[in-house]
Amino acid sequence: MTETLRLMIARAPQQQALFRVGPKQLEAALERCALPLPPVEVAARETTDADFAEVLERSFALVGFRFPTEAVQRTRGALRLIQLTGAGCEHLLPLTWLPEQVALANASGIHTAKVEESATMVLLMLHAHLPFFATAQRQHGWTPKHSGAIAGKRALIFGVGGIGTGFARAARRLGLDVTGVRRSAGAAEDFDRVVDLKEGLVRLAEADFIVLAMPLTAETRGLIGAEAFARMRPDAGFANFGRGGLIDQAALIASLKSGHLSGAVLDVATPEPLPADSALWDAPRLLITPHVLCDDPDTYVADALDLFLDNVHRRLQGQPLRNEIDRRLGY
Amino acid sequence: MTETLRLMIARAPQQQALFRVGPKQLEAALERCALPLPPVEVAARETTDADFAEVLERSFALVGFRFPTEAVQRTRGALRLIQLTGAGCEHLLPLTWLPEQVALANASGIHTAKVEESATMVLLMLHAHLPFFATAQRQHGWTPKHSGAIAGKRALIFGVGGIGTGFARAARRLGLDVTGVRRSAGAAEDFDRVVDLKEGLVRLAEADFIVLAMPLTAETRGLIGAEAFARMRPDAGFANFGRGGLIDQAALIASLKSGHLSGAVLDVATPEPLPADSALWDAPRLLITPHVLCDDPDTYVADALDLFLDNVHRRLQGQPLRNEIDRRLGY
Repeated sequence: MTETLRLMIARAPQQQALFRVGPKQLEAALERCALPLPPVEVAARETTDADFAEVLERSFALVGFRFPTEAVQRTRGALRLIQLTGAGCEHLLPLTWLPEQVALANASGIHTAKVEESATMVLLMLHAHLPFFATAQRQHGWTPKHSGAIAGKRALIFGVGGIGTGFARAARRLGLDVTGVRRSAGAAEDFDRVVDLKEGLVRLAEADFIVLAMPLTAETRGLIGAEAFARMRPDAGFANFGRGGLIDQAALIASLKSGHLSGAVLDVATPEPLPADSALWDAPRLLITPHVLCDDPDTYVADALDLFLDNVHRRLQGQPLRNEIDRRLGY
Repeated sequence: MTETLRLMIARAPQQQALFRVGPKQLEAALERCALPLPPVEVAARETTDADFAEVLERSFALVGFRFPTEAVQRTRGALRLIQLTGAGCEHLLPLTWLPEQVALANASGIHTAKVEESATMVLLMLHAHLPFFATAQRQHGWTPKHSGAIAGKRALIFGVGGIGTGFARAARRLGLDVTGVRRSAGAAEDFDRVVDLKEGLVRLAEADFIVLAMPLTAETRGLIGAEAFARMRPDAGFANFGRGGLIDQAALIASLKSGHLSGAVLDVATPEPLPADSALWDAPRLLITPHVLCDDPDTYVADALDLFLDNVHRRLQGQPLRNEIDRRLGY
């Protein structure tokens, strides 16, 4: 008799409705799933439920985004996989709580299609001075400023994961020259070239568009500060689609106030939600979107669950996972 | 001996630098021009110059955007063509001043490439709630609102000329269903269908995106008023790329204030420049760009002059002009 495969959903109260996984959605994913899985039993628990640890102890895999890491650390049970429904895991770092036998995977890649659409928009907005016009509008100023064709401009994208790749595809489609930046140089599909972090910081000086789409780790926290902003071209456009902590937000504000940079778009900020008294709101030539541009509400949870079941199958078969997080690097 | 062809440039003091044609630019266009033209003499005059009418009297063709129409009306000389460097000619209406022997052409079509880029941006911005976020930012509000994929949505584009076509191409590329609206139904390249004005007003009720890109004439002035806005879907996005006078701006503001429409982008307004005390500036979910999104400063004048010389050649040969304006319809 085949043993029952127990899958657990961790639901956190602070999670936006859009990202909340329920048993019905997981059952729908199981219906769609063509992979040969043993009989499955699904359990969903709020992270605050008294029997959370108990259910976890019996489960082979957990899907969710926020959960009590100490419960995971204590488990000696069946747990072998945690699938995150988001791309970033900085809220779980350092991964010292993660038992050896438990693999952790993120949801990188499920954002790519929506990111491509948003990236097209954001690159065109930076190019056409939309942040400048939004600021002029706040001051009731009609101040024409034209832009030519975007083709031939240079994009510098920090991060070559799901979000960086979405940006690269959009940039390529617009006729831009696209440089990716990651820990080590090399090649990556959709990028004209990939340089290492040191070279990436050098190339800040020549890029027309600079996009952050890398994970927040001890190494990348505050990477783009006053010095990096100063190195950018005065007419460069800047976008942060990674995490607010990647940049020194005060330095960005100071840079914009000094007249540097043609404009900026932030889809992420620190903290989130951004409090009403944050100086970011009124910074000139800065547009803020509240962490919404990478996620398609119509497909998000379904795509994440399809990835989860694929990884469950891979874990059962002893195959390499998709998006496994390196417990040392933290992404 | 071939007679000298006299071409005149009308320069108006209020014209933005970007659109000002000078003799050097016309000579460069003549260098580029492969058409068999007789020897050319170029004259440029400010519309305020004392000898404007005198030079006009000797000229075969005039290129410019603003000029004293009464001088043209009085001419009994060589003038056979006026080439406008812009698409709209509402400042010249009605065309009762236009002598029978003088043909008038506009610059429709030279905007299409830049419009396509801007249209992609604007459709994606309306789809992704950017006008909503800009308003939320003014109020320091972090209010997430997601959007799915844009493909499959419906665009309704009033006007199938150069700007409407640029929008249609962008919309098609994004996977939208594209309906064009003009005086009479029929087919037009880049549109899924073209309906007449009456049907266009009916279809306001089902469109996800409504774009105005038609000329301002006696017939279209104020076409989109309170009733038309009310007929639009509450979640529709609206863009005006034609002329401010096409809409009842107060009705748009009232509509937005009542919570109707997901957002609007205006690249044109009445009057221009929009005065600081206009109520448009502070209207919710409305983004204003100061009449800049259709013109590529790197190519604008050159493209307009290439069109001018093509039309000069056509006029000399007695061939139909490109973009000839119907003196009765006024576009």
